[in-house]
Amino acid sequence: TTQWKGPQVNAQAKHTKDGKLSTARPYKGTQTVKWGDCDPAGIIYTPRVLDFAMETLEAWYRDVLGVAWLRLNQELHMGAPTVRVEIDFFDAPAPDQEVVTALRVKKLGRSSVTYELTGRDGDGKDYYRVVLVACFITRPTFKATAIPEPFRDLILAYQRECGDD
Amino acid sequence: TTQWKGPQVNAQAKHTKDGKLSTARPYKGTQTVKWGDCDPAGIIYTPRVLDFAMETLEAWYRDVLGVAWLRLNQELHMGAPTVRVEIDFFDAPAPDQEVVTALRVKKLGRSSVTYELTGRDGDGKDYYRVVLVACFITRPTFKATAIPEPFRDLILAYQRECGDD
Amino acid sequence: TTQWKGPQVNAQAKHTKDGKLSTARPYKGTQTVKWGDCDPAGIIYTPRVLDFAMETLEAWYRDVLGVAWLRLNQELHMGAPTVRVEIDFFDAPAPDQEVVTALRVKKLGRSSVTYELTGRDGDGKDYYRVVLVACFITRPTFKATAIPEPFRDLILAYQRECGDD
Amino acid sequence: TTQWKGPQVNAQAKHTKDGKLSTARPYKGTQTVKWGDCDPAGIIYTPRVLDFAMETLEAWYRDVLGVAWLRLNQELHMGAPTVRVEIDFFDAPAPDQEVVTALRVKKLGRSSVTYELTGRDGDGKDYYRVVLVACFITRPTFKATAIPEPFRDLILAYQRECGDD
Repeated sequence: TTQWKGPQVNAQAKHTKDGKLSTARPYKGTQTVKWGDCDPAGIIYTPRVLDFAMETLEAWYRDVLGVAWLRLNQELHMGAPTVRVEIDFFDAPAPDQEVVTALRVKKLGRSSVTYELTGRDGDGKDYYRVVLVACFITRPTFKATAIPEPFRDLILAYQRECGDD
Repeated sequence: TTQWKGPQVNAQAKHTKDGKLSTARPYKGTQTVKWGDCDPAGIIYTPRVLDFAMETLEAWYRDVLGVAWLRLNQELHMGAPTVRVEIDFFDAPAPDQEVVTALRVKKLGRSSVTYELTGRDGDGKDYYRVVLVACFITRPTFKATAIPEPFRDLILAYQRECGDD
Repeated sequence: TTQWKGPQVNAQAKHTKDGKLSTARPYKGTQTVKWGDCDPAGIIYTPRVLDFAMETLEAWYRDVLGVAWLRLNQELHMGAPTVRVEIDFFDAPAPDQEVVTALRVKKLGRSSVTYELTGRDGDGKDYYRVVLVACFITRPTFKATAIPEPFRDLILAYQRECGDD
Repeated sequence: TTQWKGPQVNAQAKHTKDGKLSTARPYKGTQTVKWGDCDPAGIIYTPRVLDFAMETLEAWYRDVLGVAWLRLNQELHMGAPTVRVEIDFFDAPAPDQEVVTALRVKKLGRSSVTYELTGRDGDGKDYYRVVLVACFITRPTFKATAIPEPFRDLILAYQRECGDD
C-alpha cells in the first residue's frame, strides 16, 4: 500500500545520534547481560545467546540497511526468516558483563545472506560465534525472492568496507 | 526440504482431548518452572510470574471462550489488551516446581473484564495472586468496544459455574 | 566470605563512562523495543513491560546504589525480591520505539522500598507506570532484614535529589 | 555436601504420573506455541525454537536420566553446558500450534553428548531440527569431566531402546 521510498533510517528508530546510517565497520552491538538473562548456574541461559545475536542483526538492518523489520514486513511485504543457525559457545558471560557482538557478512546469495556474529568482551575474551543464514521471502506467500537491489548494493558495500569482499 | 507455506490459523489448536471447551471450574493451568525461568538467585525471575498468568489467560480464552487470540485479532479484528495488573508475590517457586494457576472472573464491565489468577502448588502453598484488567478493543482503531454477546454469555456462565455470580 | 567494602561500582559493570555512580536525577534507563519483545498484534507483549521495569531497577542498583545484584546475592548474602507490583498500561509501544523509564523512590521502610517506574518516549507520550515494592532479605533464610545503612543513606540522598523528600 | 544417592526421580518434579522414569522411546516433549513466543510476523520468534529444544532436553534429564538440573548443579556440583548448536528451520509454527519435540542421542563421548531434537506437529509436518552438543563439567572449576557411570549406563540404554546403538 505505502510506496517504498528505498532504504532509509526509520525516523523513530535511529540508533545513531544524528539519524544517519551507521558507518562503523564491522557493525557492533553492545549488550549488558541482565540478571534475567541468567539461570541458576549463574551464567547466561543458553538460548539468550541467540537472542543477543538476533537483536544485533535486527539493529544492523535498521542502522546499516536502513530498514526496520516492521517496515520490511508491513510496507515492503517481505521478510527474511532465519533458515539455519550454528552456534559455538566458547565461554558463558555472567550478569553485568558487557558483550560486544560484531557482525560480518560471509556470503551473499540470490535470496539468502550468511552472517557471522561474534560476541566478545572489552578484554578480547570470546563468548560465542553465531553463523546465521537468512532468506528473503515475499509475504504472504513466503516464497523465496531475490534480495532487492538497494539492499544488495548496501550489503556489497558493507562487505567491502569490512574487507570481506 | 519442507515447503514453507507461512503462518495459518490452526483450526485444531485445542487443549481438551476431544476438542470440546473445558468444563473444569475454576479453569486451571499447570506449568512447570523451567531452568530458564529462574535467575542466579535460584528462584523464578519476577517478570516470569506475569508470563505464567498471561499464558493461563491465553489458554482460558481458547478453552473456555473458544477463541484463540490469533482468531480474535485476525478474524474478528479485535483484541483485549491488558490495561492494569496487580501482583502479590507470596513465595517464589524454584526450577521443576509445578504451579497450578486458577482463573476467576471478578468483574464484568461493558468492555472490560477483571480476572484473578492465583498460583499454588499441589500442597496448597500460595505463590502469587495476579489481578488483571483487560479491555476489548476493535482493530485497527484500538477503541474500547462492548464485549461481543457470545463472549459475554460465556463469561457470565463461567462466573455462575465458579460460584462468583 | 568476602569482606564487604561498602557500596561501590562493580568494576566490570559500570554504566557511566568513567566508572562513577550516576548522578542524573531521576535516574533513567533507555530501552529500544525489540522485534522479539512484540507479539502478533504488533505491540509489546504485556509481560515485557515488567521486564523493562525490572531491568531499569537492576541498573539503578548498580549505577546509583553501587551494588550489582550478583554481589548483593553472593558477597552480601542478601537479596531484595519483589513482593508487590502494580502496572498501569497507558499505551503499547511497537518495535523500534525508544522508551525512557524514569525511577523514583516513593517510600522507604525499615526493610522495604517502594519504587515508581514510568515509561515515556521522547515526545512525552506515556506508555506505562509501574509501582514496585521490594523487600531486603538475608540469604539463605529469606527473612526480611533492615536495609543496610550505606544503602539507606544513598536512597535518602536519592530521594532528596529527586525532590521526593 | 549432600551424599549422592544415584539417579532418581525428583519427588517434586515428576512428569510421569506415577513418579517413575519415562519409558517412551524416543522421549518426546509437547509444547504449545504461545502468543508471547511469536513476533509481529505472526510466527515463532527464531530464538524461541532453541528455548523449545532446551526445555525438552531439561525434561529429558529429569524424566530419563532421573536428575533435575538443579540437583546436578547443587548436589552433584556438576553441569552440562551447551558447547555447540546447529538449527535447521523447516517451517515456523504460529500461535496455538502444538509441536512435539523428539530427542535422540547421536553420539556419546567421554564427557560430551550429542543430541538431535526434531520438532514436528501431529500431521507429521517438520518445524525444526536441532543438533546440540553438551559437555559435562565439574563446578566450580568448569573443567570437562567424564560422564558419571550411572548416567552413561542410562544413556547407552536409551540409545539402545531408540534403536540408535
